[in-house]
Amino acid sequence: MRILLYRADGNTAPWIKDFADFMPEAEVVVWREGADLPPCDYAVLWTPPQAMLADLARVKAIFLTGAGADAIMKYSHAIPPHIPIVRLNDAGMGIQMAEYVTHSVLRYFRRLDEYEAQARAGAWLQLEARDKADFPIGVMGVGALGSHVIEALKPFGFPLRAWSRSPKSLTGVESFHGSEGLDGFLGSSRVVVCMLPLTEETVHILNRTNMMKMPQGSYIVNVGRGAHISEPDLLPLIKAGHIAGATLDVFRSEPLPAQHPFWQEPRITITPHISALTLRRESVGQMVGKMRQHARGEEVADVINRTKGY
Amino acid sequence: MRILLYRADGNTAPWIKDFADFMPEAEVVVWREGADLPPCDYAVLWTPPQAMLADLARVKAIFLTGAGADAIMKYSHAIPPHIPIVRLNDAGMGIQMAEYVTHSVLRYFRRLDEYEAQARAGAWLQLEARDKADFPIGVMGVGALGSHVIEALKPFGFPLRAWSRSPKSLTGVESFHGSEGLDGFLGSSRVVVCMLPLTEETVHILNRTNMMKMPQGSYIVNVGRGAHISEPDLLPLIKAGHIAGATLDVFRSEPLPAQHPFWQEPRITITPHISALTLRRESVGQMVGKMRQHARGEEVADVINRTKGY
Repeated sequence: MRILLYRADGNTAPWIKDFADFMPEAEVVVWREGADLPPCDYAVLWTPPQAMLADLARVKAIFLTGAGADAIMKYSHAIPPHIPIVRLNDAGMGIQMAEYVTHSVLRYFRRLDEYEAQARAGAWLQLEARDKADFPIGVMGVGALGSHVIEALKPFGFPLRAWSRSPKSLTGVESFHGSEGLDGFLGSSRVVVCMLPLTEETVHILNRTNMMKMPQGSYIVNVGRGAHISEPDLLPLIKAGHIAGATLDVFRSEPLPAQHPFWQEPRITITPHISALTLRRESVGQMVGKMRQHARGEEVADVINRTKGY
Repeated sequence: MRILLYRADGNTAPWIKDFADFMPEAEVVVWREGADLPPCDYAVLWTPPQAMLADLARVKAIFLTGAGADAIMKYSHAIPPHIPIVRLNDAGMGIQMAEYVTHSVLRYFRRLDEYEAQARAGAWLQLEARDKADFPIGVMGVGALGSHVIEALKPFGFPLRAWSRSPKSLTGVESFHGSEGLDGFLGSSRVVVCMLPLTEETVHILNRTNMMKMPQGSYIVNVGRGAHISEPDLLPLIKAGHIAGATLDVFRSEPLPAQHPFWQEPRITITPHISALTLRRESVGQMVGKMRQHARGEEVADVINRTKGY
């Protein structure tokens, strides 16, 4: 078996080592522009360079090193529909997302951001506690990662809401779905956590119109993609106090440009796309398992539905 | 039935209202120095003024409005040993402690304190992730509150340690106890969370000698009492890098004095004793239940052991 590997950062050695551990019989070929490549069975990559597309059209399946599909969807026209594009399923990302979101929710609910600002000013002052009954957490997108986040929040006793494209039933969670369920979901969530896949339907889903449907003083956590939020709409809503603040791990343009106004807004907490890092060994282990299934002619899970876009 | 109530802040009205709801047959008498008091059955208070001690010696039982006993222990000589002193059991404090500690642990583990400092400087830089296997969380004190904290941490998969006075067995937790177990506990905990009762045995338990037993780069979370930590020992250990930092909710002197050097140390996160606020209604409900048991001659739980001091 031969695997075609591409890493934008050029750091291929640890991936080759991990493939050698999990699949010693495989030969890993590093893709380079203009190189004379032997025929490869499977490709492993995140965003392919334009010049790689012709080579991708000749493999048996493509394995993405992330849980999203948006990075490759813009090239999908060049990849024949019979070639499955397979994304990661959790692979250690769910628990990281759960850590990040739980931290953000607890921090805002317990006003620990305000307490830190007070402490920097040398002030000792107990603030009024927030009422948990008045603090529903709404999670948008309840795939593998969203479900993990919901399970981590459960022990803390927040009222929980979920919104998804198609109907889903989750124990202890009030579920909404589809465009007809969006208003009810937004109107009843005090914190909205965006964990959606980025598709034509979800781009800018948190625009001014929809953010205005959230209750006065709501909070936003975005660990999906930057383009889920209409960035120029968010800042005025925060300045006006309708949105109390936001914790953002993803942005329209990354790294977030130095002149971007988000840097200057203390009610926006910025992290550099670290809510869930790809764990290489867990990812390689999962990909190798799926490659073996595919080679045996078995069905492989987590193939992107090109119509839905995820 | 007559209840003698004392509140240092003078804000007795909401307590009287809650007792009226839970125990309409009771008369609540507010203690005032020099006032001519009718005989009372039960006293409700946190720290009594010196002048109240003679009145406390005449009630049938004393109910504390907190989970600790240290505030009253220094007066216990004046309270005849046959009068039970009853502390609160959880009463909504466990979940608050779980929120606070989980936030602190996740914040340090995921380096979110560093990310916020970076963001304030306008820097976008991914830091190396810490390894959870190398991040055991050690909880000192595993009563009602400590157990709650441990349960909240479990879903995140940290290795868990516990230290208590007497042997305790907790599923999924490596347990240590007594003075003979302290070194092993400290030496194998990357984060130490102090939730102990304050007694003669636990005062200054986190002194220089014991903090030096923690691994290089360890972190401390104190939600017990300020006097559990030797404050003058902590700062040099942080400056030297042996202790990476601390989140402190309690201090030897509260409010933390304006000139205290902790305010100037960015690696110390200070909150004004808010990790678990007494929830009045839950507390009154619990106290009323115990008063009815006592009046019926039944045994009451959570009576302070005056020898142990908690």
